[in-house]
Amino acid sequence: MSADGQGMYDLVRRLYPLCRSITGEGLRQTLAILGQETDLELHEVPTGTPVLDWTVPKEWNLRDAYVKDASGRRVIDFQACNLHVVGYSVPVHQTMPLAALRRRLHTLPEHPDWVPYRTSYYQEDWGFCLSQRQLDGLADGDYEVRIDATLADGHLTFAECLVPGQTSEEALISAHACHPSLANDNLAGIAVAVWLAKRLRAASSPARHTYRFLFAPGTIGAITWLALREPLLQRIRHGLVLACAGDPGPLTYKRSRRGDAEIDRVMAHVLTRSGRPHEIAEFSPYGYDERQFCSPGFDLPVGCLSRTPYGRYPEYHTSADNLDLVSPEAMEDTLETCWEVLTVLEANRSYRNLSPKGEPQLGRRGLYGSIGGRSDTEERQLALLWVLNLSDGGHSLLDVAERAELPFALVAEAATRLEAARLLAPTAHSERPGRVPLRQQA
Amino acid sequence: MSADGQGMYDLVRRLYPLCRSITGEGLRQTLAILGQETDLELHEVPTGTPVLDWTVPKEWNLRDAYVKDASGRRVIDFQACNLHVVGYSVPVHQTMPLAALRRRLHTLPEHPDWVPYRTSYYQEDWGFCLSQRQLDGLADGDYEVRIDATLADGHLTFAECLVPGQTSEEALISAHACHPSLANDNLAGIAVAVWLAKRLRAASSPARHTYRFLFAPGTIGAITWLALREPLLQRIRHGLVLACAGDPGPLTYKRSRRGDAEIDRVMAHVLTRSGRPHEIAEFSPYGYDERQFCSPGFDLPVGCLSRTPYGRYPEYHTSADNLDLVSPEAMEDTLETCWEVLTVLEANRSYRNLSPKGEPQLGRRGLYGSIGGRSDTEERQLALLWVLNLSDGGHSLLDVAERAELPFALVAEAATRLEAARLLAPTAHSERPGRVPLRQQA
Amino acid sequence: MSADGQGMYDLVRRLYPLCRSITGEGLRQTLAILGQETDLELHEVPTGTPVLDWTVPKEWNLRDAYVKDASGRRVIDFQACNLHVVGYSVPVHQTMPLAALRRRLHTLPEHPDWVPYRTSYYQEDWGFCLSQRQLDGLADGDYEVRIDATLADGHLTFAECLVPGQTSEEALISAHACHPSLANDNLAGIAVAVWLAKRLRAASSPARHTYRFLFAPGTIGAITWLALREPLLQRIRHGLVLACAGDPGPLTYKRSRRGDAEIDRVMAHVLTRSGRPHEIAEFSPYGYDERQFCSPGFDLPVGCLSRTPYGRYPEYHTSADNLDLVSPEAMEDTLETCWEVLTVLEANRSYRNLSPKGEPQLGRRGLYGSIGGRSDTEERQLALLWVLNLSDGGHSLLDVAERAELPFALVAEAATRLEAARLLAPTAHSERPGRVPLRQQA
Repeated sequence: MSADGQGMYDLVRRLYPLCRSITGEGLRQTLAILGQETDLELHEVPTGTPVLDWTVPKEWNLRDAYVKDASGRRVIDFQACNLHVVGYSVPVHQTMPLAALRRRLHTLPEHPDWVPYRTSYYQEDWGFCLSQRQLDGLADGDYEVRIDATLADGHLTFAECLVPGQTSEEALISAHACHPSLANDNLAGIAVAVWLAKRLRAASSPARHTYRFLFAPGTIGAITWLALREPLLQRIRHGLVLACAGDPGPLTYKRSRRGDAEIDRVMAHVLTRSGRPHEIAEFSPYGYDERQFCSPGFDLPVGCLSRTPYGRYPEYHTSADNLDLVSPEAMEDTLETCWEVLTVLEANRSYRNLSPKGEPQLGRRGLYGSIGGRSDTEERQLALLWVLNLSDGGHSLLDVAERAELPFALVAEAATRLEAARLLAPTAHSERPGRVPLRQQA
Repeated sequence: MSADGQGMYDLVRRLYPLCRSITGEGLRQTLAILGQETDLELHEVPTGTPVLDWTVPKEWNLRDAYVKDASGRRVIDFQACNLHVVGYSVPVHQTMPLAALRRRLHTLPEHPDWVPYRTSYYQEDWGFCLSQRQLDGLADGDYEVRIDATLADGHLTFAECLVPGQTSEEALISAHACHPSLANDNLAGIAVAVWLAKRLRAASSPARHTYRFLFAPGTIGAITWLALREPLLQRIRHGLVLACAGDPGPLTYKRSRRGDAEIDRVMAHVLTRSGRPHEIAEFSPYGYDERQFCSPGFDLPVGCLSRTPYGRYPEYHTSADNLDLVSPEAMEDTLETCWEVLTVLEANRSYRNLSPKGEPQLGRRGLYGSIGGRSDTEERQLALLWVLNLSDGGHSLLDVAERAELPFALVAEAATRLEAARLLAPTAHSERPGRVPLRQQA
Repeated sequence: MSADGQGMYDLVRRLYPLCRSITGEGLRQTLAILGQETDLELHEVPTGTPVLDWTVPKEWNLRDAYVKDASGRRVIDFQACNLHVVGYSVPVHQTMPLAALRRRLHTLPEHPDWVPYRTSYYQEDWGFCLSQRQLDGLADGDYEVRIDATLADGHLTFAECLVPGQTSEEALISAHACHPSLANDNLAGIAVAVWLAKRLRAASSPARHTYRFLFAPGTIGAITWLALREPLLQRIRHGLVLACAGDPGPLTYKRSRRGDAEIDRVMAHVLTRSGRPHEIAEFSPYGYDERQFCSPGFDLPVGCLSRTPYGRYPEYHTSADNLDLVSPEAMEDTLETCWEVLTVLEANRSYRNLSPKGEPQLGRRGLYGSIGGRSDTEERQLALLWVLNLSDGGHSLLDVAERAELPFALVAEAATRLEAARLLAPTAHSERPGRVPLRQQA
């Protein structure tokens, strides 16, 4: 699987230099590159479109930006690092003394070599971010300040990747795509999502669920998507936000607002059985776009998978969240965990025992050893008995696995054998998906 | 707040010498003194009135009582301590040898200097209580025994103090008022209740709840009140019995029969967050008048707040439960805890998020910092998000505080700010209180 | 009670030599002996009768079996131990070299002196069981093999013992009766069941429940009984499978599939309060006939009481499960525990407090001490108050005992006293049992 890890890392490296924001060309280029990896549908939503309680903002594009000292030397240079400009800074070109400039400058005194990441999306403002050491090196005197940006009517861009399944029941995988040169937050999450889409497309037969991948700017992108896709939301059975998916820390799953949604239980089952160190955190209305998906008016069953989560690693939202922080191995570990979760979600059905009175005679169906008397409690046989015993329509295979304390795969295999022997039938019925168009845009 | 502590202690000291019982002049004088502190309404219920399964008993009044030795010296003297006479003793005047008298005498051998407190309300009887040391000092021989009491048709007296609120939803605060010279049980509870009434009356605007304070004799008084007030009971949303409120022990809250009534949860929240040592005990049908309020036919949400509870301190129901056992500081601590509980009860509402789909844009309403990107998870901002996320009509602010692990006050403040920003509206609707007359008496 | 222990042990000793199987004369003789101890009704179900997913098999009878060496010596002799023949072996008479015979021989290499117990009920086959030491002593050469058995149309036999109660609500006690010379599994369980039936019959008045004892072959017997008795199953309120009831290990109770059936809660209450070491295990669809009773189409409230359970002692299903493994004392301990459980089941009712508003005046009914003021919280008085407080129709006496943390017997006594004082009335109403005939047989 090392090829997957390397492939994801290469994608991260390719996307890293682009100057992304919640709108603009950097975001558009990012989505175009993703479209080279997997089939994507791009959507452009015009500035001014009302979306839930919000409005799609003006589009921001930045060509160049710098602060020059009296000698004309660029002491802060956007070309060197796109974090140097406060996101959504309005155009400015003026000369001002250091004393006046200072209040526009953001640093991280506790990490004197790192450049912080700052934005001001919804209040027109401008500023620069730089390392404390850079700031300390600035002499008094006048500086030429230039931000060559446009903030004008345009569009907000997002992309969806739809992998059709056997049913219209959907699983949503979402990764925010608005951050500039920050590798873990969230190029790693984007890469894992793309690789999941590739694997699903590469499968020999369609999955039971239809998978919808969303690459959109954080907050406003999720809100825009929710507004436009509202008629479709009732199809969503499970959802996962991928963020900070590539750092060396152990996996952390944050439950959905519901706390016991199927995705929550599957994630806990997979992580607990994996033997890997991990953390399972309760929902809180802070973090990534699960905030929007789990708002009370939607309350979608969407959790968030990270390695080290939101704000809990020192490099978070700084220039140190770079290509050194993420690794092919960590992204691959995240990918494999997601894949295992998808495998369980796919197989997790409720069944009805078609011979529920007493045990059916497994022996005559070749499902049971014929020599009795041995204390033969081996797991495969136990799995058959557990599935039969709990298949009353009210228990899913995951319920069976948890109550029986057996691996899910063994329980799912037992269900398959029993279904083949006509002793079991799935309870739910799902139809083929129809196509839901984007809601009419303003 | 030391003035409150001293004021309560002064009231206890003033009430201490009176010879209270479940009826009679001592009880009437006690309620009259309380009426000087706060507005009270007195009720007199005639002997013979059927009240639930009981009947209002005869009124008992005691003028004098003694045991004199052969020399005429009062070896037991009611004037010295009103615990010396078994409560509700019938009149007696006779001379008898010590041997015969002994079976009428109650002592506490394990505390040879203390006089026990005993009563015989519902079986006509008489007796004296004295210290073991006193008993040991009695020589054989004849003694003149005199109990100058009347037990005759009269009334049972109780008092209510009503502090009207904005709604007819009531909170009941009850303190039994029948014990003679016992300071902790229950003059301290009475004093704390009176001071709560004073504070509520002194508030600049009426509380949301109407507060009803009840000062009545234990058991029969509560039963009489329940019988007469039955039509009103449906208004009671919360209730608290105050007993043993002034000793130096840590606070103990005994849950209502329901176990998870709002008062139970608020009390647990306040005590747990207070950092003070405390105990939270499950309901049991033994103790104070919560026994009556929580009987299955009423099942009112009434808990009991004590310091050291019922029967768990050695001085309990003895002459050692005196003015030394209680302190201004302990009563003040009880008072402040109650006040904090009332504050939470007042503010604990359920709200509905008026912009429940996605997060509302807090920034444009001045509720959110405009510079994004910082890992700014400070509590006030979190409180806003939690209140928005859980305000689906099914969660109270206390639910929010508990799930968010935030102080209630912060959550309540967030709700106030969000309501002001028209993002939140309370779910429940309450009307102004009407007046419920006492049930027609027999 | 030592007489009971000795009586049970004598019964086990008497039954031990018989060659039982799931059908045949050994089973019939066993049930005939039980019929000498208590009143039994025998049922014979013909071969070929469809029962649920199964069919009643042919009847198997074994007259003799041996393996003789070249000298004519019986090196394996059924007359010495009936475990030597694989249960349901088809007739065979041939001479074969040891090399060919070997694959028909079952041993326990880890216990070289023990003979294993093996069967092949549903696949026609034959074989011998012997100790590893016996096998090791066999020289190469030819052996005469003889199994003088018949496998032919006949009947499956089971027996019921019905002890009528005041109501038609039934408790089922089941013990499998198909194992040959194995003492703990399950002659001990059979003996305890017989003694329970004796005690119930010997009682001065009928129990509230009707008790139905079932002695049937494992699996197919339970399935046959379920098929024939299906109309009656709705009457079953509680059930207990008795198995491995005589070994020296501590008691183990395995919960019913429901997990919180009344039998589960009573068993846990009795075992926990007993102070004896014990284990309470969750349900699993493996073990004894609770597998059938708890299949999802029936889901009867049937648990299983053992000492050392199924497959967890080394002697399990070997010749070492003999008369030395079981003791009068262990069986008596199992019997007394069952009896205590039956006592609780009999008394466990829900009541309604007929004076639910406030406490009724217990003193005037002689249920309460008349001298008040003592911190008299003794258990009998507390039990009265708890029963009154929780008798709202929604709590059984067991609920009261558990919430009050009082012994059940004390709570039941309080209910009896309160019912006598007309303060309590049972909520449920049950009629006299009717007679349900066996379902029409094929």
